[in-house]
Amino acid sequence: MSDLIEPKVLKGFRDSLPQKEIAKKEVEAILEKVFTSFGFVPLDTPVLEYAEILLGKGGGETDKQVYRFFDHGNRDVALRFDLTVPFARFIATHESELYFPFKRYHIAKVYRGENTQRGRYREFTQCDFDIVGSDTVSSDLEILLVMESSFKALGIEDLTFRFSHRGVFSYFLSKLDISNKTVEILRLVDKLPKIGGEAVKEQLSGLTDPEKAEKILTFISREENNERTLEKLQDLSGGSNPALDRLRDICRLLSAGLSRSAFILDPSITRGLDYYTGIVYETFLRDLPGIGSVCSGGRYDNLASLYTKTRIPGVGSSIGLDRLLAALEELGKIGCKPSNTDLMILCLEEELTGYYHSLAGKLREKGISVEVFPEKRKIAGQFSFAEKKGIPFCLICGSAEKESGKVNLRRLSTRENFDSLSLEQAVEILTQGQPPKA
Amino acid sequence: MSDLIEPKVLKGFRDSLPQKEIAKKEVEAILEKVFTSFGFVPLDTPVLEYAEILLGKGGGETDKQVYRFFDHGNRDVALRFDLTVPFARFIATHESELYFPFKRYHIAKVYRGENTQRGRYREFTQCDFDIVGSDTVSSDLEILLVMESSFKALGIEDLTFRFSHRGVFSYFLSKLDISNKTVEILRLVDKLPKIGGEAVKEQLSGLTDPEKAEKILTFISREENNERTLEKLQDLSGGSNPALDRLRDICRLLSAGLSRSAFILDPSITRGLDYYTGIVYETFLRDLPGIGSVCSGGRYDNLASLYTKTRIPGVGSSIGLDRLLAALEELGKIGCKPSNTDLMILCLEEELTGYYHSLAGKLREKGISVEVFPEKRKIAGQFSFAEKKGIPFCLICGSAEKESGKVNLRRLSTRENFDSLSLEQAVEILTQGQPPKA
Repeated sequence: MSDLIEPKVLKGFRDSLPQKEIAKKEVEAILEKVFTSFGFVPLDTPVLEYAEILLGKGGGETDKQVYRFFDHGNRDVALRFDLTVPFARFIATHESELYFPFKRYHIAKVYRGENTQRGRYREFTQCDFDIVGSDTVSSDLEILLVMESSFKALGIEDLTFRFSHRGVFSYFLSKLDISNKTVEILRLVDKLPKIGGEAVKEQLSGLTDPEKAEKILTFISREENNERTLEKLQDLSGGSNPALDRLRDICRLLSAGLSRSAFILDPSITRGLDYYTGIVYETFLRDLPGIGSVCSGGRYDNLASLYTKTRIPGVGSSIGLDRLLAALEELGKIGCKPSNTDLMILCLEEELTGYYHSLAGKLREKGISVEVFPEKRKIAGQFSFAEKKGIPFCLICGSAEKESGKVNLRRLSTRENFDSLSLEQAVEILTQGQPPKA
Repeated sequence: MSDLIEPKVLKGFRDSLPQKEIAKKEVEAILEKVFTSFGFVPLDTPVLEYAEILLGKGGGETDKQVYRFFDHGNRDVALRFDLTVPFARFIATHESELYFPFKRYHIAKVYRGENTQRGRYREFTQCDFDIVGSDTVSSDLEILLVMESSFKALGIEDLTFRFSHRGVFSYFLSKLDISNKTVEILRLVDKLPKIGGEAVKEQLSGLTDPEKAEKILTFISREENNERTLEKLQDLSGGSNPALDRLRDICRLLSAGLSRSAFILDPSITRGLDYYTGIVYETFLRDLPGIGSVCSGGRYDNLASLYTKTRIPGVGSSIGLDRLLAALEELGKIGCKPSNTDLMILCLEEELTGYYHSLAGKLREKGISVEVFPEKRKIAGQFSFAEKKGIPFCLICGSAEKESGKVNLRRLSTRENFDSLSLEQAVEILTQGQPPKA
């Protein structure tokens, strides 16, 4: 009988309710402040791009994950599935307008038609920060410092930053004469946290031989400190090389008092099949090891090679904001405020509507967020409404109070009433959470 | 020969370069602060929804403007083309979790395959704020107050808010016995600013008769003040009615000292064929009349009727953020800063990389945004880089300065040098823009 349309959202998509959106905006603001303090600038690119731009000329492989269609002009288009590819295209498009090294951050939604059974979403927010146009230890280091500052600003200090260098791994595989199996080996090493050392060793043995498998496992294990790990890497990869030198420089700078965080050289970090060529990073929360890395990245040789002949090296890292928010919630680091309103003015008499709004205006000038309840309802109902919205105070004012220029306040959490206050006294209570000195 | 992909964006889509994105974020932050101060909360909905949700069950009409396709699961989906329809769906989906009246704002991108020749974009940002669940003069008024506060916070005070009431217009047409031609008449009245009074009158005459056309033109013209306009509307629409009462209440509240802005009752404001049923609003900048309304909206009877049987009235307004940004730029109200960085630390010696980063860390703790130039280049080139990025100060420090714990500053705009400063003295200059007192 009903002609109603069921108000459902697509599988893998979600609404963000106010209390989640408030928390998300707070986290974004904290991160943006950190990025800005390091000289990173924001930019934005279209959600929709030519499919060829996003997928490359061949571009069939990732197809299943990509929202791709033909638009009205019969253009082959797709929704961005990450922020790196659009950034590469952006750099090529605006090469002549930008100054390098160029440092940008980008917090935006991306789209992947992933299997939702693994708890993945099809629309999610990424937060990327990159330095392009400089292949230096300074930039490699700076990304780590931004990562550290970001988590510190969010109130998370109990975490470890793990890093390694893809180049060192390449030298090592080359020394073992198994460079031709790099892809398979990387894939197996990447499985280590999931399937464990024994299983990896067995599969590596099948791929190479037991002796080499043993060596690979020795290579990717950590020693008791970064210096020892460096020594081992040097031994196993056949002496010094530029990649190892870079890694040594980074370790030296990190240990020179720049930071007190746990930066661990961990050769098992390879970032799997990603396009990284230099340093690679991952970040783990000590209290939530199960959620995996919350901020990962690395150095790439040539960002925009699909679109320009200019070689543009870069280094950067990315935070999965949804996963981070879930983690912050689990750690109790973000609140669940359904609103940021400080005060609600009750509607006792609809004739006083103008007066209520003028009181609200005066209080807003003092930096107080004020909601005016718009219609007359039972007072108990209005109190309960304010309580459900997490508003700490109500202002109660009828004709008599208006006459005398006074207001009454009620703190909902304690049911305390503060009667016959001047507006100044009310401001005092509202801004300090304290009753005025008698 | 080249296998490069041309790095072009789709027609009607744009990149947002840092200086534009910085300005946009500043404007958004200002607006969000205003909305929050009135008790509005943020929310977000998916960019992609079921086509049926966005277009209704029939839903073929707007097709050409809507990005619609079949996803991997063969679902008929579309990109949102405004923020109102997803909000209606959101309200129906979460009806039981929300408390009414519910006040939300939403700043997000929407998509329309419009003709780009008219200077329209296919991806643009809307900023909506609505109060739903209360059909009161208080809510009608509050939206106007939020509009006023928003533009004031953006530094624009020379503007007029024009409003009217669709219901009064209906009573009037009913009195003239031409209610059956409402749609055509609204369409013509909406053309007034474009084609002028004479043309509208001629077409109205054809549609009705010359006498009625004359009356319609009299109805939609303004008198010298809101009171006179109200009187005229009452005469022409056959005495008092609830719509006129609401309009009178709003005028009375606005003139009671709540605000000093120009709120003009202008019966020619009808918002064309939109779904409004009560008050309607438009906003014009006095210095830029040509760009049309920068913030428009109104009251609707029943927001979510497609999805739920609950009647949910609402009132709200919407800012086209791209048009507003263009206007602010033209009015010189927003800067064109290519970065928010306060200081760049030059790289004189790559061996000092760690020291540069530690200096930067100390300065950031003082609230200063610091960029560390990551590699050794000619000093003139580094200065020029900082200048192009709009960074006001450079810090120059070599081994000798490091030894003595001193730094040198240079203010790029004036070429002033401040030599041999302690870090505290440098902070003093950087935070006040003034040299330290000798």
